[in-house]
Amino acid sequence: MKVVDIHTHVYPPSYVSLLRSRQTVPYIRTFPDAPDSSRLIILPGEDDPSTPSTSRGRPVGPDYWDISKKIAFMDQHGIDKSVISLANPWLDFIAPEEAGEAARKINDEVNEICANSSGRLYAFAALPLSAKAEVVVKEVERLGSLKYIRGIIMGTSGLGQGLDDPALDPIYAALEKNRQLIFLHPHYGLPSSVYGPRANEYGHVLPLALGFPLETTIAVTRMLLSGVWDRFKGLDVLIAHSGGTLPFLAGRIESCIAHDVHLKKHGKIEGRRPVWDILKKNIYLDAVIYNEVGLNAAIEASGADRLMFGTDHPFFPPLEGEGSEWLSVNTNYAAIKAASGGKEAMADGILGGNAIRVLRLD
Amino acid sequence: MKVVDIHTHVYPPSYVSLLRSRQTVPYIRTFPDAPDSSRLIILPGEDDPSTPSTSRGRPVGPDYWDISKKIAFMDQHGIDKSVISLANPWLDFIAPEEAGEAARKINDEVNEICANSSGRLYAFAALPLSAKAEVVVKEVERLGSLKYIRGIIMGTSGLGQGLDDPALDPIYAALEKNRQLIFLHPHYGLPSSVYGPRANEYGHVLPLALGFPLETTIAVTRMLLSGVWDRFKGLDVLIAHSGGTLPFLAGRIESCIAHDVHLKKHGKIEGRRPVWDILKKNIYLDAVIYNEVGLNAAIEASGADRLMFGTDHPFFPPLEGEGSEWLSVNTNYAAIKAASGGKEAMADGILGGNAIRVLRLD
Repeated sequence: MKVVDIHTHVYPPSYVSLLRSRQTVPYIRTFPDAPDSSRLIILPGEDDPSTPSTSRGRPVGPDYWDISKKIAFMDQHGIDKSVISLANPWLDFIAPEEAGEAARKINDEVNEICANSSGRLYAFAALPLSAKAEVVVKEVERLGSLKYIRGIIMGTSGLGQGLDDPALDPIYAALEKNRQLIFLHPHYGLPSSVYGPRANEYGHVLPLALGFPLETTIAVTRMLLSGVWDRFKGLDVLIAHSGGTLPFLAGRIESCIAHDVHLKKHGKIEGRRPVWDILKKNIYLDAVIYNEVGLNAAIEASGADRLMFGTDHPFFPPLEGEGSEWLSVNTNYAAIKAASGGKEAMADGILGGNAIRVLRLD
Repeated sequence: MKVVDIHTHVYPPSYVSLLRSRQTVPYIRTFPDAPDSSRLIILPGEDDPSTPSTSRGRPVGPDYWDISKKIAFMDQHGIDKSVISLANPWLDFIAPEEAGEAARKINDEVNEICANSSGRLYAFAALPLSAKAEVVVKEVERLGSLKYIRGIIMGTSGLGQGLDDPALDPIYAALEKNRQLIFLHPHYGLPSSVYGPRANEYGHVLPLALGFPLETTIAVTRMLLSGVWDRFKGLDVLIAHSGGTLPFLAGRIESCIAHDVHLKKHGKIEGRRPVWDILKKNIYLDAVIYNEVGLNAAIEASGADRLMFGTDHPFFPPLEGEGSEWLSVNTNYAAIKAASGGKEAMADGILGGNAIRVLRLD
């Protein structure tokens, strides 16, 4: 039995240099009122001057870019292989004319990291989504030449208009044709107004615990409603954080579609593929949900053979006890154990077997 | 075995008159390009001139105010008793100086409707939340004199600043002391920007299927984080739509709290009640989730003895076949049957037994 972590991020050295050279989100900086740590600011608004220094971004260190730290983390937590991915916000913020070159460079760099890992690492590539669709398609086609790439990681903004944008169709077509899975990951969250005037008192909890999965759910539902999976029946998407909240809300989504006068009038209710069919044939879910209640729902929605273990490393480190095992990782291990309820084959599949099969790992 | 519907709305005649007299959301009007039906506009933005007439609000008719229609609906669907509630947006939009009187009038009117129902109807009252907290507290205390009132229905805005507003404390205290349960129901949804530029093509699906439960989840999480249930350990809240997405996300919420540097620094991690404890001791969930995957998660999170059947009548009527049974209702019946898996006592509890016990129905 092998353990595979499919949700684990890396900031390669060239990307860290880029972030250090910037003055607006995303960037890395040391603030005068928190001089002891270099802070990584990636979420919109988390550098608001009214934000307390302890919730302004997050401390950033070698765990983010030093591959020997990644391997040590894997060894400590019994992880055999990891499928690394550039962390958010990926290349979304790169100037359009530089994005194609930036993507080639970072994907080559990540592939090289994997090549030097003695078989421990594979990767999801990043796409130059700020450029034109044809530049993106070209990079998708080039990925086949990179030995360790097993799909691409992507946020929810697409080419800037969301994942229901028809301009994405050539990119979806290229991904489907080249059997490159999309690892769909949140970044932009929700407008901060929804968290109310006391949000700062709660640290990062609201944007991380809710903003991320809610953003994900909206993005996937827009894909569903625009018929992406009716047009691209072989397009595979691995959704972060066990689907945001899709497994829980799929019934309500189906019911709202079935009762919508506007969709009915435009002939959009019959003929489309139901959410449940897409969940079982196109969608994979990571097992990053921190409790068996959510994990059970994810398993019931997509099937135990479509769930894959992940850690979200280097995020959610333990608050104390440098060097100790990570609570966030062990919470997900415990959830998988509880959800499998003694069915060893199910647990083995979620922990690694499914990833090895689906992502064609050696 | 009795079937009790705890999620079913009424617009009493006086409230309908009020809506007909208004020109801004919420209101009732017949539009020139949809002359055949009176439309009810309650959601922000759903009267945008660019909105197609078929998704501008919803047709409104006697099902919304005629109690004989409610009783006929109950008879048709095997419902013995209903706990009716004023539909959103309740009294949130009433001028502050008129709210206290409006609440007394509407609660008396609703109580009278129940008194004339031969034991079929009970009700959740509405609160004058646009007024000062003391006016609200006074109405909470008066509700004990209304024989058929079994709690209050409330949106997510509270006194205008959300449910984590410390100004609500006297109201929470009064509700706890008077054993009046809060039926927490969404209305405001999310800012329309999150649905992207093609949202109008999808009818009401995004705001109804996602906006409502996501709004609910944010509101409840803000209550949790502000310590409402640490201060009011006996405050009971029945959450609409099976908790929004709370059962699915509770693990992630707990994990994000446990890993938050800011909360740690301010001593807010230890000592607080975990989400799971509150889910099992203070929170009740309706069973309005339209599939057993979500319902199973709700049951696992709160316990089968805390789930209660609901219909959301008069919303989600069948699109065709006037007079036929409602698909939305039968979908929820089927989900309860599937989730109970032959355990009759569990199904009976969710269908009615829990509501009879918790709401002290005769």
